Amino acid sequence: MTHPALPAVLERLDQDLDAGLERLFHLLRFPSISTDPAYKGDCAAAAEWLAGELSGLGFDAQVRPTPGHAMVVAHGDALAEEGADGPSLLFYGHYDVQPVDPLNLWDDEPFDPKIDTLPDGRRVIRARGAADDKGQLMTFVEACRAWVAVHGKLPARVSILFEGEEESGSPNLVPFLKANAQELSKDIALICDTGMFAPGKPGITTMLRGLVGEQITVKAANRDLHSGMYGSAAANPIRVLAKILASLHDDQGRVQIPGFYDDVDELPEEIRAQWQALPFSAQEFLGEVGLSHPAGEQDRSALEMIWSRPTCEFNGISGGYEGEGFKTVIPAQAFAKVSCRLVSRQDPEKIRASLRAFVEAQLPPDCTVEWHPHGGAGATVMDFSKPSFEAAREALSAEWETEAAFIGSGGSIPVAGHFQSLLDMPSMLIGFGLDDDRIHSPNEKYDLESFRKGARAWARILAKLAEKG
Amino acid sequence: MTHPALPAVLERLDQDLDAGLERLFHLLRFPSISTDPAYKGDCAAAAEWLAGELSGLGFDAQVRPTPGHAMVVAHGDALAEEGADGPSLLFYGHYDVQPVDPLNLWDDEPFDPKIDTLPDGRRVIRARGAADDKGQLMTFVEACRAWVAVHGKLPARVSILFEGEEESGSPNLVPFLKANAQELSKDIALICDTGMFAPGKPGITTMLRGLVGEQITVKAANRDLHSGMYGSAAANPIRVLAKILASLHDDQGRVQIPGFYDDVDELPEEIRAQWQALPFSAQEFLGEVGLSHPAGEQDRSALEMIWSRPTCEFNGISGGYEGEGFKTVIPAQAFAKVSCRLVSRQDPEKIRASLRAFVEAQLPPDCTVEWHPHGGAGATVMDFSKPSFEAAREALSAEWETEAAFIGSGGSIPVAGHFQSLLDMPSMLIGFGLDDDRIHSPNEKYDLESFRKGARAWARILAKLAEKG
Repeated sequence: MTHPALPAVLERLDQDLDAGLERLFHLLRFPSISTDPAYKGDCAAAAEWLAGELSGLGFDAQVRPTPGHAMVVAHGDALAEEGADGPSLLFYGHYDVQPVDPLNLWDDEPFDPKIDTLPDGRRVIRARGAADDKGQLMTFVEACRAWVAVHGKLPARVSILFEGEEESGSPNLVPFLKANAQELSKDIALICDTGMFAPGKPGITTMLRGLVGEQITVKAANRDLHSGMYGSAAANPIRVLAKILASLHDDQGRVQIPGFYDDVDELPEEIRAQWQALPFSAQEFLGEVGLSHPAGEQDRSALEMIWSRPTCEFNGISGGYEGEGFKTVIPAQAFAKVSCRLVSRQDPEKIRASLRAFVEAQLPPDCTVEWHPHGGAGATVMDFSKPSFEAAREALSAEWETEAAFIGSGGSIPVAGHFQSLLDMPSMLIGFGLDDDRIHSPNEKYDLESFRKGARAWARILAKLAEKG
Repeated sequence: MTHPALPAVLERLDQDLDAGLERLFHLLRFPSISTDPAYKGDCAAAAEWLAGELSGLGFDAQVRPTPGHAMVVAHGDALAEEGADGPSLLFYGHYDVQPVDPLNLWDDEPFDPKIDTLPDGRRVIRARGAADDKGQLMTFVEACRAWVAVHGKLPARVSILFEGEEESGSPNLVPFLKANAQELSKDIALICDTGMFAPGKPGITTMLRGLVGEQITVKAANRDLHSGMYGSAAANPIRVLAKILASLHDDQGRVQIPGFYDDVDELPEEIRAQWQALPFSAQEFLGEVGLSHPAGEQDRSALEMIWSRPTCEFNGISGGYEGEGFKTVIPAQAFAKVSCRLVSRQDPEKIRASLRAFVEAQLPPDCTVEWHPHGGAGATVMDFSKPSFEAAREALSAEWETEAAFIGSGGSIPVAGHFQSLLDMPSMLIGFGLDDDRIHSPNEKYDLESFRKGARAWARILAKLAEKG
């Protein structure tokens, strides 16, 4: 029993595609890099623009300040059609983006979006944030726009929360959720910041890794030293840091922090069977980025490595002279950015404490360590036996004309955990990204088809949730 | 039997000190950073200015182009007084300087020299290059200027060579020496790029370490990856690089490159005894830079570590996200700048090959390494039984009214080796730097007293070499 307006809504979305793209391009032109204070004004501008768009659709939309970048909160109660008594919804997306360095590896300006055609014929939207997360959040906005344009109303009670600090650890999300718990607690959260299982194969992500990060700065001498005058007599922070980083994994890829695996559960047998049935090839997954050999725990499958096993990765390292040529210096300090993806019941603060203790126990004389914590969220595992999960799965299957899957994701979307723990609200993670979107990398893109069918899928999901969610 | 003009020359130097400082400041204002192509014009300007100064003194001076930064060559045959039949001399210095990063750690502009007063009352010249090597080379120019001003002539046959690429590995020095061997071959080279043994205690450096460097770039995926999507499945170049760097030393500080110590001689017993008699305190030497524990081979004294033992040091490291905040990226590549100080008969190219083989043997699947060689010079040990060494030692002792010492130096001055091997010319290394000059670091300085007494010492050395060198 499909909502009678749905066919016209889907048709409207296809007709309005060019205008929808132009709206997305407008959003992509804001260089809303949340981690770099230089872009504070651009983040604010992006938030204002989004609030304006939602107001224009009839939402009660506000830009809500935080100590960092603002939240955009919009309520569509006035837009809900009479008798919309399905679950109330909170849609979540984020308008901030990752930094763009190294800039010289971009083929075009990262904040000057354009349509490119890939060698295989796919048309893609090319810009920083195209996939993560501006393109994704706009699929939902466009779906709402089409419902309003065709039907004058939405088939569900919809609220929206856009965050501006997802890419910099969401420092103000938890206080904001706590302070506005009643306003934001809905029956289900819809989070659009994940991917399809594969091109043409949509999925609902039901398992997310958590994240805990630390910048480790090792300090030795009180200034940079000449390596001729002091070489080998003076402690070298790069050497100390390298030894510490090297000690974090054994030769089999197992993390050596004491107790690291204590709270890691083995995968339930039925999930393992489901994953084994998925058309996943480690060769293809790695081959696409020029690799061939799964580098993690050697006794695990690649899909386990990225979906259900914890990691300890080095995201950045810096020390001494990094410019052209050589400078024979022994630097006063060196740092590394280290992050662990967490699974099962791993507690981020417990892992953080173990990491710190493990590192500090290895410090040689004359060296000190400075910590800059980052993130801190446990893993999230959804209860996908709820009827709304099945409703959304049917809507996705209808749009792609193939069975949608329940999948895992190696990424961390801490907001899902916060919605559960702070607002008692379960999340459905539905997104249309693809593995080759190059999110966080130069030349990020979002398939035009992800944008088009993503919006159509949301239009269907809103109808389906109203009906049986 | 002192040269009759010497007392007047020394007096003239003291009277002319302020003008001499102003000339040095002029030279210090050129940001002649040779390793960075952005400063090519400034290097050229510094060379032109030096040639002009020397022409003004009566030298036959030329700026001589190379494929990199120019050499300044000046001959003072017309300035030599009649009967100047002591050894002919080639004075060497370099007009290029180290980069200035991190700029925020400088208290003042690095290329705006000024006189500062230290807490202990010493007056110092503060600027990049003040000690390394512009202040030092100008001590010799000022000594010549005073001789010409007072006496109209120099007491010796003096030529001068100023290089512009010493801080970037001297890529054009060997070809230049080879192409101009006859012109530049003199009886003795005077190299002013070293330090005093201690404040108030001058020295002649007779033992120099060599240098071989490599930038090691480890590459894995064909692009930066999201650490959530690929974390632990994809090879992480920072992790691979850290393992490799960590493998280069054992826990006792011994370098693990196979064969590394094969050509390292133990110190002759008489030199060891001489060094033990020197007023050297590892506590003070390290304490001055905030350290306390000699970090090299644990069975060696600190003086051995820096003067007579080889090292493997990490001068820079870079990879992934290094900015503020966090970016959960697995970078496509990471690099380290590694340099080995060489002693005795260690062959730079043999060590380079061993280092490369050692690293390549450790590369895991999916990783490749790219090499960028730097430097390549063996150690130099002088024959200080020659009479000119004793003559210079006497002149230094007279100026400082204390016994000058024959000392070692941890730094590498490859030009001394090249003079020996290519021009069959022995070198005397005499300089007036101090351990706290912060060369290659922010807030580099040169003691005003080093500049003043350095010039006076050269004036004395020229006279003494004419007499008995």
